[in-house]
This record gives sequence, C-alpha cells and structure tokens, in this order.
Amino acid sequence: MTALSQRATEQLQARARELNARLDQLKAAGLALDLTRGKPAADQLDLSNALDGILRGDYRLKDGTDARNYGGLLGIPEARALGATLLDTTPDRVIAGGNSSLSLMQLVVDAALRVGLWGAGSAWQRETDTPRFLCPVPGYDRHFAICEALGIEMVTVPMTDHGPDMDAVEARVAADPGIRGIWCVPKYSNPTGCVYSDAVVARMAQLPKRAAAHFLVMWDNAYAVHDLEQPSPKLASLAPLTIAAGTDDNVVQFTSTSKITFAGAGVAFLAASPSVVKALEKHMGTMTIGPDKINQLRHVRLLEGRIAQHMQQHAALLRPKFAAVLERLDHSLGDLGIATWTRPKGGYFISLDTLPGIAQRVIERARAIGVTLTPAGATFPYGADPNDCNIRIAPTFPRLADVEAATDVFVLCVELESIEQILARRLAS
Amino acid sequence: MTALSQRATEQLQARARELNARLDQLKAAGLALDLTRGKPAADQLDLSNALDGILRGDYRLKDGTDARNYGGLLGIPEARALGATLLDTTPDRVIAGGNSSLSLMQLVVDAALRVGLWGAGSAWQRETDTPRFLCPVPGYDRHFAICEALGIEMVTVPMTDHGPDMDAVEARVAADPGIRGIWCVPKYSNPTGCVYSDAVVARMAQLPKRAAAHFLVMWDNAYAVHDLEQPSPKLASLAPLTIAAGTDDNVVQFTSTSKITFAGAGVAFLAASPSVVKALEKHMGTMTIGPDKINQLRHVRLLEGRIAQHMQQHAALLRPKFAAVLERLDHSLGDLGIATWTRPKGGYFISLDTLPGIAQRVIERARAIGVTLTPAGATFPYGADPNDCNIRIAPTFPRLADVEAATDVFVLCVELESIEQILARRLAS
Repeated sequence: MTALSQRATEQLQARARELNARLDQLKAAGLALDLTRGKPAADQLDLSNALDGILRGDYRLKDGTDARNYGGLLGIPEARALGATLLDTTPDRVIAGGNSSLSLMQLVVDAALRVGLWGAGSAWQRETDTPRFLCPVPGYDRHFAICEALGIEMVTVPMTDHGPDMDAVEARVAADPGIRGIWCVPKYSNPTGCVYSDAVVARMAQLPKRAAAHFLVMWDNAYAVHDLEQPSPKLASLAPLTIAAGTDDNVVQFTSTSKITFAGAGVAFLAASPSVVKALEKHMGTMTIGPDKINQLRHVRLLEGRIAQHMQQHAALLRPKFAAVLERLDHSLGDLGIATWTRPKGGYFISLDTLPGIAQRVIERARAIGVTLTPAGATFPYGADPNDCNIRIAPTFPRLADVEAATDVFVLCVELESIEQILARRLAS
Repeated sequence: MTALSQRATEQLQARARELNARLDQLKAAGLALDLTRGKPAADQLDLSNALDGILRGDYRLKDGTDARNYGGLLGIPEARALGATLLDTTPDRVIAGGNSSLSLMQLVVDAALRVGLWGAGSAWQRETDTPRFLCPVPGYDRHFAICEALGIEMVTVPMTDHGPDMDAVEARVAADPGIRGIWCVPKYSNPTGCVYSDAVVARMAQLPKRAAAHFLVMWDNAYAVHDLEQPSPKLASLAPLTIAAGTDDNVVQFTSTSKITFAGAGVAFLAASPSVVKALEKHMGTMTIGPDKINQLRHVRLLEGRIAQHMQQHAALLRPKFAAVLERLDHSLGDLGIATWTRPKGGYFISLDTLPGIAQRVIERARAIGVTLTPAGATFPYGADPNDCNIRIAPTFPRLADVEAATDVFVLCVELESIEQILARRLAS
C-alpha cells in the first residue's frame, strides 16, 4: 500500500465511504469496550490469591515484632528489603508504605514544597513563589495532577526512545532557577514504554548539580519488574550513580506491587538517601502511626525470592494482548504513513501518535462506536496536547477478544480521521 | 488513714524513708514495665485472627466489583455501611479509608487549612495568618501534633467529667475569631475516659453558629464501641443534631477498627456532610487511586452484624487490667488526699492528677525503678502541663501481672513525691 497522503483524492474519498460504512455496521453492534485503564485483568489478580490466608496465624516478624499491633513508621524490615530488591538499592534507604505509591509521591513533593527535605529553610515555598517541574511528554497524568494540586507549574520536555531529551532537560534546568524537579518513569515509561538508556540515567544522576538547590528527581519506577519478554532490557541502577555524583539527596525512587499482586491492595515503596528518609520519617510521624504491616508481611511471604517467576506468569497473560494490538496496528496502519506507535517490551501501555490535530477526533469517533480510549491530552500537563496527536492504548484490562475487537474499531477510526484531515488540507490549499 | 497534708512532719519523714527503702528493693529487682501505650494486648489481637483467610477466594462486592483492582476512592459500600454503624450515621456520609484515622484527621485539617472544605476561597490560610484550635485538656497528644505540624495554634479549655467545659468553649469562640476548630474525643475521652453528656453534645452541635465561618468540630470517636461494662453509657448521636442546627458542614467524625481488630492493620472512617465528603473526595483524588478495598472487605466479613459480641470479648480481657489499676490506686492512695483519678467505663486510659508540680518527678522516679509511663505533659498542647500534675495510665498492653506490678511501683512513687512536696512546702513557709 502507498501512504495515504500520496493517494488521489477520489481514491481517498472512496476509502472514506467504505470506512464510514464499516463503522456504521460496527456501531449497530452496540459495542462497549474500554482501552483506557492501566489495570491488571482478573486473571492477573488471580496469580496473587494466595495472599489471603498466607500468614497461617504467624504474625511475627523475624525480629519478633507482632505485626498486628501499632508502630513501625518506615515499614517492616522484611518489606523494606523487598522494596530494596525492586528498586535495586539497600533496605535502610527504603520506606515501605501503604497501598499507594501515588500517595508517597504526593507526600514527598508536598514535604519538599512546604516543609523542606533538606533541613531548616529548604522548603521550596520559601525559595520561590512559582516552583516548576519538568514533565517529559507524553507522560503520566497522575504525576501532572500532583503538581497541579500543589500549585507547581509544569514545563514540558520531549521524550525520545531512550528517555527524556537530556539536552533539552539540561538546557531548561540551566536557564530556569525556578525548576525544582522532574518526573521520570524510567522503565517502560508511561505511556511510550521506552526504557531510559544508560546514558540518560547517568545524565539524570548528574542533573541536580546543574539545577538550583533542592532539586528533586522523582523516579517512579512503577514497572521495574514488569517485563513482557526475556531477556528484558536492563535499567541502569540509579542509587550508585547519585551517590557517586553527590546528588543522592536529590533523588527519590518509587515503586509498588500494585501491578504485581492486587492493584488496590498492594504495598508501595520509596527509596531515598538516609537524610531524606529521616526527614520524611519526621514528616510522616504526625500523620500516621505506621503502615499496614500485616499486608506488608503477606507480600513478603508471597513474593520473597520469587518475584521473577511471578512476573513471568503476568507476562504470559499480557503478551497476547499487546501482540493483538500491535498486529492490528501493523496490519491496518503499517504502510499508510498516518501514525507511529511504540513497541514496548514491558509496562502497561502502547503510545500512538496520529497526524497532528486529530487525536481528539479519533477518540471521539471511537467512543461513538462504543470503544473508550484515554481522553486526548491526558498524557500532557493540563490535559493539553499541543499537537493533538498522542493516544495512550491500555490493552491489559479487557479480555483478549475485547482487545482485538476494540483495536479493530480503533484502526478504522484512525484511518478515517486521517483521510478526512488530508482531504480537508487539500481543499484548503 | 488521714490525708498526708494533715500528718506531722516526723510521721511523713518516717513514711518517706519506708517508701524509699521499698523502692530501692524494687529497683534491685530490675523491672522493665511499660504503662505508656494505648495498644491492645496480644490476646485482644487474637480475637481477629480470622481476618487472614476470611475471603476464601471471594473478592466480589455485593455490587459485583472485584475488590482486588484499582478504584473506589470513598471505600467499598459495605465498609462505608460498617463505618456508618460505628459513627451512628448513614453510609453516604462515610468515607472508608486506609489503616489510620490519624491520617484522615490530618487530611481534613490540612484540606481545611490550604484548600478549603466549603468552596472557593474558604481555606483558613486565606482568612487568617494564625488559625487556632481549641484543645480540651488533658487530651490526646497526636491531635496536638497535627496542629503543631500544620502551624495551627492551640488554646486550651478545661475538661469536666461530662466533656469540655462548654461555658469556656463558647466564651473562647465568641471572643476569638481566629479559632477555627476544636478537638473532641466524645466517648471515653483520651485520657480521662469521660463520656460527653447529652447537653455537651447538643451545645457542640450549636457551636459553629457561635464561631467564625468555616469552623470545624473534629469529632474523634475512637472508642465508639469500646465499652468495658454493660449497659454502657450512651453517647448522643451528633449527626441529627448538626443537621437540625444547620452546622452539618462544620463537623467531621472519625473512628477506626484499630482497637477492634488489628491495631496497625485496621480500617479508618470519617463521616461528614455530603458537600464536605465531596470536597474531600476531590482533594484525595490527586493523592491516591483508592484505599485497600481488600482489607475493608475482610473487616466487613469479620464484623458485619457482630461488633457488639466482638467488643464484649475485648471487654472481658480489659476489665481485669483496669480493675487492677483502680484497686491499687484506691487501696494505696484512696485516703491520702494527694491524687484524684478517673474511673472510665471504657476506652484505653485512666487519667490521674497528682498534687501540682510533681507529675514529671513521679514519672522520672518510676522510670528509674523500671516502670515507664507516658511522658509528663503529653496530654497538653506543646507537651506543657501548666500544673505538672496529669499522668496518663495505659493498662491495656502489658500482661495483667505486669499491670499489677507496675501500678504497685507507681503508687509508691506518687506517695513519695507527694510527701517530699509537702515537706518542701512546709520548710519553705
């Protein structure tokens, strides 16, 4: 096939009629499909059903503590060790929290903003009226929501296939002393699925030295072990690099078991330098007596020493869904020159870029046929995609047959909106 | 026996020598006892061991939702209903959260301070530079810590046997427009154990009308069902009174299962007006995708329809410990005129007042013998008891024999410090 933009107008008009007819048929079928949610499917959740009942009446930690009672603000030692495995660091640097890494991220940014993580007077709000964060785009809407809720301005920088464009990142940081941090999803980035290259990780570890004081790299390693293929891409370990660079106090790592065990009932972790852990411990001390140690202990009993095996079971369930989407994108859009998309080796998303200016229309058209996609712009700060071209596809939650059916509709919508865009431009020129 | 203050100096000196000798003997015994912690004992925790494994593979809510996955910011409907039972209100007004009611309290005060719970422009920080809270004393140190962390000034008002001195509360609120809230533990108040009378509850429901706009009654009903005796004192239901008074948006209630099931792994609840619930939902939406619904479901399966029966089992374990303390206080201090104490019908604490100026010395002396008590002043804002007389006794956590042994030491310390105080005063006058 030739690229759509090379085809004759009549040919495109004919194809548009054909696509419209097919979509009308599909609409009549009354589909109700959903590709919006980065959620595990029920068969993935089943992999962790042993969690309930796993303690068998044994609530003692290795140090003798009764996990059922109050206390232990930083989490149980066993869980901190589990988090250290996930984040490739040491247990003393880890805080094991409740069920939400997002809550930990909000806690850290809020503490940096209002209290300061680096001693008296280090709160961002003392230093600047308008703290700003760099947001590689496309990115994760819930990161952006934290900034928006806390009044932190967002400045976008482009993503590449190897992580954020570090030239752009470094230039921005050098030029703007109001910039206080950057959001990173270093492995299987949400939504592109890229893995930060060793060079990007190394430059990120150096970044705080180029920035204003009290810079914060928010390293959300949500998909640390969420590989679809083996051997899997290896993410460079951040902590040794920041320790060597003297930027150890300027990086906080996050992860959770949300997409390892139960999405709503997992354990979240952060890792930071000893002094930042201490500052956070003090800050948390007025908010809670401690996390749910019982749930932490359950997770330790389920996952200790068998994370890789467990994640391979997830991968076996997820691979066909990702393959189904990619096959359809390749088959239906591969030669048309109207879209590009990522081929992630892990994580939860595929990111697709349409021709500029039609992402929202594609999503609206798909919704009219009964296929819901993540809202256009969600992958950009303030919900505003300047090119209106990025679409996040989340194939994990629906049944395989539904992923297939939804993608079949989606590719038709992309092609039709592309044709209409091309025709409209020809008419206008 | 006659009151110590009526006895001759020589008699007191002889008694002091006797007490010193006995304490020296006890010190040699190398005790390590602890009456500081408002924690359930292991045998109480055992009452809820069925929690682990209770789901038996059934993760479905009544509405069909899979509790293992993401979502449900306000908690599962079944848990909201459980919270409504505990807080004597309706499920639509309840948010079922994570394991910590303290976190919910911090969330509410922080939201009221910075975001506003009553629409645009209602944040306290917009209205006043120095928001203040009324703190009935003695009270709960973790309430005070929330205020301190958030920069809210604390103003004390006295507790009576029936709740806060409402004349003082109303006068303060009328005189000081900076006052934005009050902390209340309405049933088995921490530490006195008093239950707010119907008149106090009724006046509290009216209080926001006397106060500046955006007043907040923080109603921490932590011991709602924690009765030691039957029939138990009945706390008037707050919600109907505030609805009738038009102050419904100015009261938030809290409770948790921390001292019903597992102290560190329970479920916390708040109840508020529909508009405040909505404001909190929006505020929480950037912090988390939702609470641990699995743990909520476990609690529902364990407790639904059998809270009273469950709490009676707790009471059976706790009654002997409270009785052991009270017997010893009565027997050893009853006629000496040097201390008063409460006789709570529920909750977790006994509050004792010494002669003015010796609480800290009593606690230090006991610690030297190997008996740890809650630090002096902990029941007052900023850790400062102006009369240095209040001591909080927490008899629940140690074994009964240890409660007995610790109280035996404690009464000796109270008597000895009282004698020394009386003698010093005689010398000075």
